[in-house]
Amino acid sequence: MKAVGVVVEYNPFHNGHLHHLTEARKQAKADVVIAVMSGYFLQRGEPAILPKWERTSLALQGGADLVVELPYAFSTQKAEWFATGAVSILAALEADALCFGSEEGTIEPFHRLYHFMAKHRLAWDRMIKEELDKGMSYPTATSLAFKRLEGSAEHLDLSRPNNILGFHYVKAIYDLHTSIKAMTIPRIKAGYHDDSLNESSIASATSIRKSLKTKEGWQMVDRVVPSYTTEMLKSFEKETTFLPSWERLFPLLKYRLLTATPEQLHAIYEGEEGLEYRALKTIVSATSFHDWMTKMKTKRYTWTRIQRYATHLFTNTTKEEIHSVLPRGTESLPYIRLLGMTSRGQMYLNGKKKQLTTPVITRPAKVDDRMMNLDLRAAFSYYASFPPSLQQKRLKEEFHRTPIRIDHKPEPKKEA
Amino acid sequence: MKAVGVVVEYNPFHNGHLHHLTEARKQAKADVVIAVMSGYFLQRGEPAILPKWERTSLALQGGADLVVELPYAFSTQKAEWFATGAVSILAALEADALCFGSEEGTIEPFHRLYHFMAKHRLAWDRMIKEELDKGMSYPTATSLAFKRLEGSAEHLDLSRPNNILGFHYVKAIYDLHTSIKAMTIPRIKAGYHDDSLNESSIASATSIRKSLKTKEGWQMVDRVVPSYTTEMLKSFEKETTFLPSWERLFPLLKYRLLTATPEQLHAIYEGEEGLEYRALKTIVSATSFHDWMTKMKTKRYTWTRIQRYATHLFTNTTKEEIHSVLPRGTESLPYIRLLGMTSRGQMYLNGKKKQLTTPVITRPAKVDDRMMNLDLRAAFSYYASFPPSLQQKRLKEEFHRTPIRIDHKPEPKKEA
Repeated sequence: MKAVGVVVEYNPFHNGHLHHLTEARKQAKADVVIAVMSGYFLQRGEPAILPKWERTSLALQGGADLVVELPYAFSTQKAEWFATGAVSILAALEADALCFGSEEGTIEPFHRLYHFMAKHRLAWDRMIKEELDKGMSYPTATSLAFKRLEGSAEHLDLSRPNNILGFHYVKAIYDLHTSIKAMTIPRIKAGYHDDSLNESSIASATSIRKSLKTKEGWQMVDRVVPSYTTEMLKSFEKETTFLPSWERLFPLLKYRLLTATPEQLHAIYEGEEGLEYRALKTIVSATSFHDWMTKMKTKRYTWTRIQRYATHLFTNTTKEEIHSVLPRGTESLPYIRLLGMTSRGQMYLNGKKKQLTTPVITRPAKVDDRMMNLDLRAAFSYYASFPPSLQQKRLKEEFHRTPIRIDHKPEPKKEA
Repeated sequence: MKAVGVVVEYNPFHNGHLHHLTEARKQAKADVVIAVMSGYFLQRGEPAILPKWERTSLALQGGADLVVELPYAFSTQKAEWFATGAVSILAALEADALCFGSEEGTIEPFHRLYHFMAKHRLAWDRMIKEELDKGMSYPTATSLAFKRLEGSAEHLDLSRPNNILGFHYVKAIYDLHTSIKAMTIPRIKAGYHDDSLNESSIASATSIRKSLKTKEGWQMVDRVVPSYTTEMLKSFEKETTFLPSWERLFPLLKYRLLTATPEQLHAIYEGEEGLEYRALKTIVSATSFHDWMTKMKTKRYTWTRIQRYATHLFTNTTKEEIHSVLPRGTESLPYIRLLGMTSRGQMYLNGKKKQLTTPVITRPAKVDDRMMNLDLRAAFSYYASFPPSLQQKRLKEEFHRTPIRIDHKPEPKKEA
């Protein structure tokens, strides 16, 4: 059986994601689609709008055959580690291809850029350092260094977020010496950061989350997500009375910061002196997450960088923990957690069972591993803002829930 | 001017406290009464039902002339440290006497016991250790060791909570070589741990807090507290919609525990292996503070001991912090924080100003001190469960509020 991988967050699952899943299967001529999906916290340093179980169900309904979890140690990271984690998992599951959406839309420029970068590595690193020393943020420094290499004109536009991620998938495929075939499809219409819904049936996840904050917004969301996404959002909100967000978690984050010592802050992953000092200084008067972020923002740090720091603060993830987990992760993953599957997905796993060297686990109960500890802590943190009875149910689930099973409806038979 | 000290929590201020204040002034023939009052967290490891400002106001209305704060490093401690902190402060303020309520009611047995204990120190310490090794809790071990010394028959009943505290005040007065005169008055009627209100006008603070949980209870409370206490409780609850309690703080405590590493738990003051392990094991399924405490309770640890541990967990207070602060505290206090005064109290302070060696401060803004850091963190923790706008106001207050001024109404003139 042939498998194509996709790396996803589904925050929440929308028509663009559906298109991507369908095209990935088609273009790779794959029998199964493997979705590597972030758990509770996402790449831009945000809690997911729905728990991973709900998002797994949506992924299966949308056409994925296997949904496996991208561990926290990789999921809330800059593109390089995010991609390395995802590609490691796809390699361990022996996927034949990886298909990502990009602004570029064709794969050649990604390969060309990889080779160009490999050639100019040392000069590029030096230039980035120079720009950082001038006080630039990391993405700006990268982009400026790139321009100075005079590579920008003929190469991939690395100012586009999906091109950056795509480049790092391709780079990880090379660097990890896997035989995965990289493929890309053009993203359609909506830009990644657009925050208003337009008239078409495609909108970015960012704009969808924004629309979900108002009653009118929900109606617009209806047009740009599959019906099962709307139903899932509605039933989840009915159960909990809220959709998870930073604002919901902010009282806990504030409590954490108000009671932390400078030494404890310094131990947190992504912490550095400037950020720690600002965090302690700004938290006392911050009345909301957005208010705090606005007070935290400087030219030196991007919004995303600060949000990632906030996420690690929130989950109490230390430098020492991440550093003990990351290098090992790229050599041999300690486990792959299966969140959901169709019967086709199960067939694929059964066929591979004897040759896979990484354990595919269905529940964390018996795994004693530092990477898993971080995943559990992320879950605990995420559910800490839930009302007691729901929290109980969810925490139990986190330890004991078996993978979600959903089978795709057979396509309607053509009439004779 | 002659000053008598009282050591108080006022959780909340009731008729028994009023009686104590009045008698202390009378029996010591004092011009001013100095109340050393705990801040936000109390000796039995609980958040105060009202912030320290509200309780300061009640203390002044009840007859105190000066209200100073017992720092967190002393306030949530076993009797020995609690008493040492309070007596140090009274000594630094040059109080002439200390008057405490006790079940015993006369002072001689306290002095006798001190000398008896001094004589049998080594044997007693050994016996306590033996009982602890058998798995007894600390209070039980103390009491059993005492019985084995055959001192119980002729001496003070140390199974009574106010006798224990009183003994430690007397002991601290001796050990710190102060010239403070110890005095005691009998506590009237209600036992310390009684939890139902009786028909009289005296009830324990414990029973009052319990009654405040029901609507009917409020009416009964009316009979056993001065009218200004009822008014204060009502207006506070109207502003906040709740009265602070462990149940209110529990979601934050649970978040703290769910995201703590074993090493972090081990660093917390009062933590030891047995407690830490149980805390991590029991927190996942705990649905309320009471539920968690019930799961935590063993023969080895008293309810109070576990609550104190919970308090230090909640405020993120480490062994290292307390150990760096305590020994110094008994030699020379870094500061005394003034919370409130009458004009008589101010006159007393002005008169002493030149001879006092400990700075009496009115706001923490400019104090950079580890003991003060713990006080601020206690305040931050306490207010972390308050709604954002109230929290803002309170945190600001914590840094900038000047002492409360209330003057006692002159007694009505006797008719000619």
